[in-house]
Amino acid sequence: MNSPRPLIAIDWGTSSLRGTRLGASGQVLESREFPRGILTVPTGQFEAVFQELFGDWVQAQGALCLISGMAGSRQGWQEAPYCPCPAGFAELGQHLLWLQPGRIALVPGLSCLGTDALNTPDVMRGEEVQIFGALQLAGRDSATLVLPGTHSKWVQVHSGRVMQFQTFMTGEVFALMSQHSILGKTLDLNGAFDEATFLQGVNQSQQAGSVLHHLFAVRTLGLFDRLSAAQLPSYLSGLLIGEELHTQNVNTDSGPVILIGSDTLTQRYSLALQHLGFACQSHGAEATWAGLFALASAC
Amino acid sequence: MNSPRPLIAIDWGTSSLRGTRLGASGQVLESREFPRGILTVPTGQFEAVFQELFGDWVQAQGALCLISGMAGSRQGWQEAPYCPCPAGFAELGQHLLWLQPGRIALVPGLSCLGTDALNTPDVMRGEEVQIFGALQLAGRDSATLVLPGTHSKWVQVHSGRVMQFQTFMTGEVFALMSQHSILGKTLDLNGAFDEATFLQGVNQSQQAGSVLHHLFAVRTLGLFDRLSAAQLPSYLSGLLIGEELHTQNVNTDSGPVILIGSDTLTQRYSLALQHLGFACQSHGAEATWAGLFALASAC
Repeated sequence: MNSPRPLIAIDWGTSSLRGTRLGASGQVLESREFPRGILTVPTGQFEAVFQELFGDWVQAQGALCLISGMAGSRQGWQEAPYCPCPAGFAELGQHLLWLQPGRIALVPGLSCLGTDALNTPDVMRGEEVQIFGALQLAGRDSATLVLPGTHSKWVQVHSGRVMQFQTFMTGEVFALMSQHSILGKTLDLNGAFDEATFLQGVNQSQQAGSVLHHLFAVRTLGLFDRLSAAQLPSYLSGLLIGEELHTQNVNTDSGPVILIGSDTLTQRYSLALQHLGFACQSHGAEATWAGLFALASAC
Repeated sequence: MNSPRPLIAIDWGTSSLRGTRLGASGQVLESREFPRGILTVPTGQFEAVFQELFGDWVQAQGALCLISGMAGSRQGWQEAPYCPCPAGFAELGQHLLWLQPGRIALVPGLSCLGTDALNTPDVMRGEEVQIFGALQLAGRDSATLVLPGTHSKWVQVHSGRVMQFQTFMTGEVFALMSQHSILGKTLDLNGAFDEATFLQGVNQSQQAGSVLHHLFAVRTLGLFDRLSAAQLPSYLSGLLIGEELHTQNVNTDSGPVILIGSDTLTQRYSLALQHLGFACQSHGAEATWAGLFALASAC
């Protein structure tokens, strides 16, 4: 696949801003990263910040710029309304919000309605690009995908369309528990990752009972010297990631689970999934650039 | 039942210090409460603080003083080692830690080992007194008891002995989620308690899926204007209390579930339990005094 013109691919999230200049076959020519997530940008200043940091690239003749992530949220540059699921690549392209027609566009997020009694809505912004990018890199059009992070996403894709997804507050709960709760008093966040202890946590989370109870064990296992302060963060991590796996119907009919995220997180999810008997494969930031490149090619 | 001598009953917790002077038949003659939980007391200063605040009562001829709660923890006045379950009233009395023989004693907490593969330990301090007090007030020797709070306790008592119990971090998770997480950005903690919304949360938590996912709905139901900012805390509360109920095998064979705690919390648990078809009855601070009085009578 070739893009007809130079592409500037931007991932503008809550806490960071990353951009790449991609070549005609999607290869990364140049990258930039700034601690200028949308939370650091005053209302009305998005265009100025963008021009300051990427203006030289944008001047390049005929460059197209696609921006995914929270820049398209209500708190961002401009709100790009969510594209409702089921949604595929085509719907995403149709819902681009053009800031400069034919030149700069915001990629919309996705929304879906849960299958629960309340049809509880769920949302994502930025992950949709990674999903389509990873599927393309993996050469698949159906998969269960997991995007670990502050708010982990579990995604079901069938025949190229995102059918349903669910958000888990796993990463945020880990941070709050380890930094602000009573558990923080006994655990040592500088402890090295301990795989065996992590898997103990995963095992424990597969048992009956609530994660609200299992969490308290992080305190008592420390109090009773069953785990050291340095081991407790690994146990906590295993408990929380295991809770996701325990309550999800992991479907590998169409192939391994696809993990997309940082090395640290995808390695932990990989460990947990394989421990429970599920095959998986991982992708990192390249999924974002592949997704935006594919979208540009379809524009 | 009559205590042979005046009793000073003290509940010295993490954040508050309450005491009563009880009459010969256990009636409360006088009460005091101070914001002098153990966290406010420097090491080595417990006796001085105690004498300053209750010294006049202690001088009363022959008064016995029993102190329950976190004062008996490693961070308290002196560590009163946990009494292992199964444990009844007799074991509690035998494990009193006398600071002044025959005059002032710390009541030990209870510990138990979980039935899970790791036999995860669990602990309580202060609740054991409330449990025995409430059982006596209710005239029962077997029950499921729930003590809601920062760390809720679910307790199984059979023939007067605490057989097993589990701690849930429900109250702490509610506080962290509403004050420190992304959910805090959309919810209004000053909103009045909304019973219907609370029960929506309870219902939702009974459905399949993880509480780590259900929590995110507090954000999306706000984003999609399905619940107002003022309603969201009630929904969050219902989700978390419902999660406890969902994962516990509520046993009412021996009678209604006994709730012990503040009016605000026992009313919410009552609502949730009754909504799910379980009878319950509630006790407040009187359970503490009844428990310490019974313990004094047995000394």
